[in-house]
Amino acid sequence: MIGRPVPPPLNAVQRIKKHATATTALTNSAVPRQVLALGIELEDGPLTKFHIERRFPGARDVVIDLEFCGLCHSDVHAGRGEWGAKELPLVPGHEMVGTVREVGGQVRDLDIGARVGVGCLVDSCRACEACREGLEQFCPNSVGTYGASDPNTGEYTQGGYSQQIVVNRDFVLNIPESLDPASAAPLLCAGITSYSPLRHHNVGPGSKVGVLGLGGLGHMAVKLAAAMGAHVTVFTRSEDKRESALGLGAETVVNSTDTAQLEAAADSLHLLIDTVAVPHELGTYLRTLKRDGALVQLSLPEGPMPGIDAGALIFKRLSYTGSLIGSIAETQEMLDFCAEHSITSDIELVDARSVNEAWDRMVAGDVKYRFVLDLATLGDPAKEDA
Amino acid sequence: MIGRPVPPPLNAVQRIKKHATATTALTNSAVPRQVLALGIELEDGPLTKFHIERRFPGARDVVIDLEFCGLCHSDVHAGRGEWGAKELPLVPGHEMVGTVREVGGQVRDLDIGARVGVGCLVDSCRACEACREGLEQFCPNSVGTYGASDPNTGEYTQGGYSQQIVVNRDFVLNIPESLDPASAAPLLCAGITSYSPLRHHNVGPGSKVGVLGLGGLGHMAVKLAAAMGAHVTVFTRSEDKRESALGLGAETVVNSTDTAQLEAAADSLHLLIDTVAVPHELGTYLRTLKRDGALVQLSLPEGPMPGIDAGALIFKRLSYTGSLIGSIAETQEMLDFCAEHSITSDIELVDARSVNEAWDRMVAGDVKYRFVLDLATLGDPAKEDA
Repeated sequence: MIGRPVPPPLNAVQRIKKHATATTALTNSAVPRQVLALGIELEDGPLTKFHIERRFPGARDVVIDLEFCGLCHSDVHAGRGEWGAKELPLVPGHEMVGTVREVGGQVRDLDIGARVGVGCLVDSCRACEACREGLEQFCPNSVGTYGASDPNTGEYTQGGYSQQIVVNRDFVLNIPESLDPASAAPLLCAGITSYSPLRHHNVGPGSKVGVLGLGGLGHMAVKLAAAMGAHVTVFTRSEDKRESALGLGAETVVNSTDTAQLEAAADSLHLLIDTVAVPHELGTYLRTLKRDGALVQLSLPEGPMPGIDAGALIFKRLSYTGSLIGSIAETQEMLDFCAEHSITSDIELVDARSVNEAWDRMVAGDVKYRFVLDLATLGDPAKEDA
Repeated sequence: MIGRPVPPPLNAVQRIKKHATATTALTNSAVPRQVLALGIELEDGPLTKFHIERRFPGARDVVIDLEFCGLCHSDVHAGRGEWGAKELPLVPGHEMVGTVREVGGQVRDLDIGARVGVGCLVDSCRACEACREGLEQFCPNSVGTYGASDPNTGEYTQGGYSQQIVVNRDFVLNIPESLDPASAAPLLCAGITSYSPLRHHNVGPGSKVGVLGLGGLGHMAVKLAAAMGAHVTVFTRSEDKRESALGLGAETVVNSTDTAQLEAAADSLHLLIDTVAVPHELGTYLRTLKRDGALVQLSLPEGPMPGIDAGALIFKRLSYTGSLIGSIAETQEMLDFCAEHSITSDIELVDARSVNEAWDRMVAGDVKYRFVLDLATLGDPAKEDA
């Protein structure tokens, strides 16, 4: 990593790999590799291209040649310091898909060339209550895919806006062959973040699920809830999203600016998936929940939410709750569910030189529904970011 | 009722009652009875004594000679217009205990003289989803014990600060003989309001339950949770409540003004029962919950709660939720549980002429832990309110 000493690897790599093919270059694996990445190098700066180092792979590690990485609103929050100070350089990206280039000697269940994905986490402690329960997203010492202190290197982790990544096998997902790899990339964050609360709240046939916000998360929530058999209601402030919502699988669309439509939706929902990433008033939406309903906040706004009228919760025994991505096991379950139901994200593919513009358009809500970075363009001089 | 026409009764009463004793006066039951009550007659006025009329009992009705009525903070909110405009006169009181004076002809399961109680509800529609599920507290047409439109009379209901009440059998609770009737009165609201969320959230041996606020509700929550086998932690801002909390059954007491004590309580609780009746910051207390924990708001503050940091909910999948008294069946279950575990409210008995002072002391938190009005003093000239 630029400007920092390269620490020695913590684990020994096994040079002879059962699955390694003759074409896999192993000769340089004892030293960290320089790989191209897109990230923030200077405070308040744009995304630019630079080299980062990936660690020498340990026995349980997988070296992945990355093909695609989704652009998540969290990347912007982190990259622009909206969630607090950040370490620089910062390479965002936690929705990545690629192919296995190399595996450590203890990794016996992944073939070279297999298509795999990595989401928001790259490690956890394996010892705490959350880890023991298979809910490593709640591990107090889980390691985020970028911007987190990496126990393997002592450096900060760097994400998927890059050509290659080295990740512990336990945090590598199998991408089913039937899924388009670019469109599958957003499943690793937007997909699992939407899927987990639907499962946690037992959504199935007969469930009435509302979705607030029709962006990267929201459009996945609509597709997944509909595939689970739920009746899906989308709340939107712009009438021109009505057709899109119906096309994604919603059966009801409520224009939130129309009090008559809101009134008609009162007491109609078991669950409301709230994907809006800015502080917003909740009373309007709590009224659409049935008794014992839950409003699940998925996006982390920059500031506190406006105050809640406790009476809205008391008189219908409602819950205002949250959900955090999902476990690795649940992420794999979600990917398999998506394969079974032919679900991927609706995406717009962007090349490396368009990434700053894509961030701005994402903040403006101008994307249907997820940008995915084509990492093949990162090393291509004809398509490079200036 | 003063100044309003008396409507005809909706149901015929059967004059011959299986359980009626020779001493039961039935001769005047065809006309509404005038009974003494304490209530608010004039806007912004104090509680004064006046007569109200109780309806001619119908076939499913029970006429109850009231002995005791708890003073609940809700009475003050309603009586002082803090929850909005009110109809006058208003007789508060929804924690009442008395004895059966007379029953309608279809009431075959209550003996004259039996000790009974009435809580926050006196009727519901019996037809809606909530009623069909036995959760009549959530019936949209449930009838509150005071200040609600009474479908039987067309008048507003009047509560338990009175000598007598007429209530449909379905909303009359059996008070176990082993319970002291005065100390049992607060179980009808404070007791069930605390009991229901403990049951709803499956509190039992091994549960870690926090209680915020040590008043009428809070002290019941401590006793009930401890009796269910939970480890109870009380949060208080005054060090002099420590011994009281331990005496009620708490095993841990956290002084909320001491950051070290709060820090030690972080991530320790499955459930936090919040009985504070004014808007208050929640972040401090959300931090004491374990993953998947819930903070249950029981009291209805006058205004919205301060904004919540959604991250506090997201990162531990916490819920901020509410609970509303309990069903009639659950109230009976609670009373039987209290008899089994010898639980009643800690009370201070007050006579009729002290009721305004008692309200002021309740607002100031100067009571351990519930005032109960001795209704025998209501008709006693020596103890009357001026």
